[in-house]
Amino acid sequence: MALTVKLAKRFGVAVGAHPGFPDLVGFGRREMKLKPEEIGSDVMYQIGAIQAFATASHIRLQHVKLHGALYNMAARDASLSEMALEAVKCVDPELIIFAPSKSMMARVASEMGFRVALEAFADRAYNADGKLVSRNKPEAVIKNPKLVVERAVEMVMKGTVLAVNGETLDLGEVHTICIHGDTPGATRLAKVLKSKLLAAKIDVKPVGSFL
Amino acid sequence: MALTVKLAKRFGVAVGAHPGFPDLVGFGRREMKLKPEEIGSDVMYQIGAIQAFATASHIRLQHVKLHGALYNMAARDASLSEMALEAVKCVDPELIIFAPSKSMMARVASEMGFRVALEAFADRAYNADGKLVSRNKPEAVIKNPKLVVERAVEMVMKGTVLAVNGETLDLGEVHTICIHGDTPGATRLAKVLKSKLLAAKIDVKPVGSFL
Amino acid sequence: MALTVKLAKRFGVAVGAHPGFPDLVGFGRREMKLKPEEIGSDVMYQIGAIQAFATASHIRLQHVKLHGALYNMAARDASLSEMALEAVKCVDPELIIFAPSKSMMARVASEMGFRVALEAFADRAYNADGKLVSRNKPEAVIKNPKLVVERAVEMVMKGTVLAVNGETLDLGEVHTICIHGDTPGATRLAKVLKSKLLAAKIDVKPVGSFL
Amino acid sequence: MALTVKLAKRFGVAVGAHPGFPDLVGFGRREMKLKPEEIGSDVMYQIGAIQAFATASHIRLQHVKLHGALYNMAARDASLSEMALEAVKCVDPELIIFAPSKSMMARVASEMGFRVALEAFADRAYNADGKLVSRNKPEAVIKNPKLVVERAVEMVMKGTVLAVNGETLDLGEVHTICIHGDTPGATRLAKVLKSKLLAAKIDVKPVGSFL
Repeated sequence: MALTVKLAKRFGVAVGAHPGFPDLVGFGRREMKLKPEEIGSDVMYQIGAIQAFATASHIRLQHVKLHGALYNMAARDASLSEMALEAVKCVDPELIIFAPSKSMMARVASEMGFRVALEAFADRAYNADGKLVSRNKPEAVIKNPKLVVERAVEMVMKGTVLAVNGETLDLGEVHTICIHGDTPGATRLAKVLKSKLLAAKIDVKPVGSFL
Repeated sequence: MALTVKLAKRFGVAVGAHPGFPDLVGFGRREMKLKPEEIGSDVMYQIGAIQAFATASHIRLQHVKLHGALYNMAARDASLSEMALEAVKCVDPELIIFAPSKSMMARVASEMGFRVALEAFADRAYNADGKLVSRNKPEAVIKNPKLVVERAVEMVMKGTVLAVNGETLDLGEVHTICIHGDTPGATRLAKVLKSKLLAAKIDVKPVGSFL
Repeated sequence: MALTVKLAKRFGVAVGAHPGFPDLVGFGRREMKLKPEEIGSDVMYQIGAIQAFATASHIRLQHVKLHGALYNMAARDASLSEMALEAVKCVDPELIIFAPSKSMMARVASEMGFRVALEAFADRAYNADGKLVSRNKPEAVIKNPKLVVERAVEMVMKGTVLAVNGETLDLGEVHTICIHGDTPGATRLAKVLKSKLLAAKIDVKPVGSFL
Repeated sequence: MALTVKLAKRFGVAVGAHPGFPDLVGFGRREMKLKPEEIGSDVMYQIGAIQAFATASHIRLQHVKLHGALYNMAARDASLSEMALEAVKCVDPELIIFAPSKSMMARVASEMGFRVALEAFADRAYNADGKLVSRNKPEAVIKNPKLVVERAVEMVMKGTVLAVNGETLDLGEVHTICIHGDTPGATRLAKVLKSKLLAAKIDVKPVGSFL
């Protein structure tokens, strides 16, 4: 973690916390039913931990993005969003919250006074209702790099994406595109995506610089 | 954790971090051989986590005391002390370091510019060489509350303690007495100890107020 | 674990497996949404582990009782029961399954050919629908030892219990009474309960001897 | 785990247990100082767990190979070997023990009546004293596939290997060659090695078929 934070600083990349459920085996991608105070504690603990590494590298954390199942559950559950975001607020209310555009979490975060970075997922398939297709389904992750880049550019330029049923989905404003680090070829994907966005005259910079 | 920190604040008690080895099963009381950067990361991570809870309660951490086997190993190993304390320094150099009086860790912490709280263990038996008797031995933990209190008062007043071989051991200056939370009757012990110390005209207050 | 198994043997007590969710922090008492094959793997892994200790003490496991949230979820979910019990069957189909009387799990276990020990909870409050009151509610655990014993005797003798709304609940046949090891005074409770049952001419013996 | 065991059966490969220290973060590759009964419990637990999966696939475990730091420490420590192997014996004394040729563990296992598979490491560098070069050193893992295969063939045919100081090391009899699953290109390496051994008229088969 120390190394990652140092490198982030060297390359002008912003650093955020990515707290999730205490589920090592499932990498935080399985739903868990926690008590409100447990949600808050888990979020606070993980933000604090990464803050220490940021401090050691003379960086300030830019944002918090909930991880895995916690992110997906909070996206559609106002009460869960509140529990998690209340914990963020207690640690640092200046942190930017990443949330899916048009999600319950985006609305709650705004109402709580947070700056919100609206997010879309270029390497994940969308259902027509705007939710991500579950990772349990084979079509959940889009592996064709060309397609991922095309979707990303469309998301940022037009705020739309093609859902699995063929409909065009309106995502609204999109400030940030997620590429999962465990998608095969993620590094290359990120490079291609950046160059395509730049070619389309879209600036690529930390959300903290424009939100 | 959140509740503990809140209560500490209400009762005028200072709060510190107690980072140890990533050994849940052994409660951090078993020796592990980690790489230098692993020691630093583990210490940093745990301090950061508790800092978040402190921040949420508008408290500043007062000190760091290494936990269990990490504390005991660092007490006698200058290089290990440096690795751990370098991590503390990067997070917050104002934190006070708890270290056994006359230990290698106490010396290293001083040389690195930290304020050091010299510590003695009222409920643990001492070998003649000044080290704690290993927890694997039956006589390691002193369970007689009267005896624990007597030892504590002697430690603070005279800076001495009786070792297991009958010799009087010179501990030097003692700023803080440790009572283990998992010693049976620990709460009652703490109360009796406090009243005895007050009766002996010894003030009981956070180390941050006099170091 | 080795010691527990040895002692069980010495005192003529049967030994069973108690597999639950991989949730150390929540002690397996929080609901998790696992894939079918994950449920099976977790159950198999934990049964195998305790089997090794049983083998080392020349004992054969008598039963499997799912733990915490997994038990409660399987009690009302036929599909989850099947996933978990299929794993048990692959390891040893002679194992007796503990399940709440009248539960979905009891039915599925019977249909799969298992012997089933019907279970009731003397130290837990029941809702009128036969489910346990959630541990998140203050009245969930019954702490009055006299009351726990009375309920247990009624459960075994009449197959009934008083629900929280005052109605008498029909539990059907009850083969085994659960006393939670972390209920304060659990050991004493077990002793009193045993003597009361014996006084009421009810034999207390391992379920494997009569199922 | 279930899938791995099933596949092993389909391809005529034997299955063994690979128990190590409870150190998830360090993948069991960091030394830990456990109590004797803790060593035994950890070994027993892990063997039992994999036995359940083997039973479910109608396979019997063939062997036990201690993992990582536990393997390396036991290789040179008779007392630690005894603790670990006593646990194996209690679970199944017919299990074959994997141990480095000429190691303390190989001797202890023999004296305890186990069949022993003498092992050499084709993708790891050896010190002149017969120990593996520590993974903390850059030269510890041999990444050149051609070199790994050459060393393996020499190990099996002649019972020798070139140590890092240029001396030829006598390994004695070698029954099994270890290729680490996390060595890059491990699968391909295993294929090439097998074909080279077959070309040199050396049979490749489970150790249980000839020990």
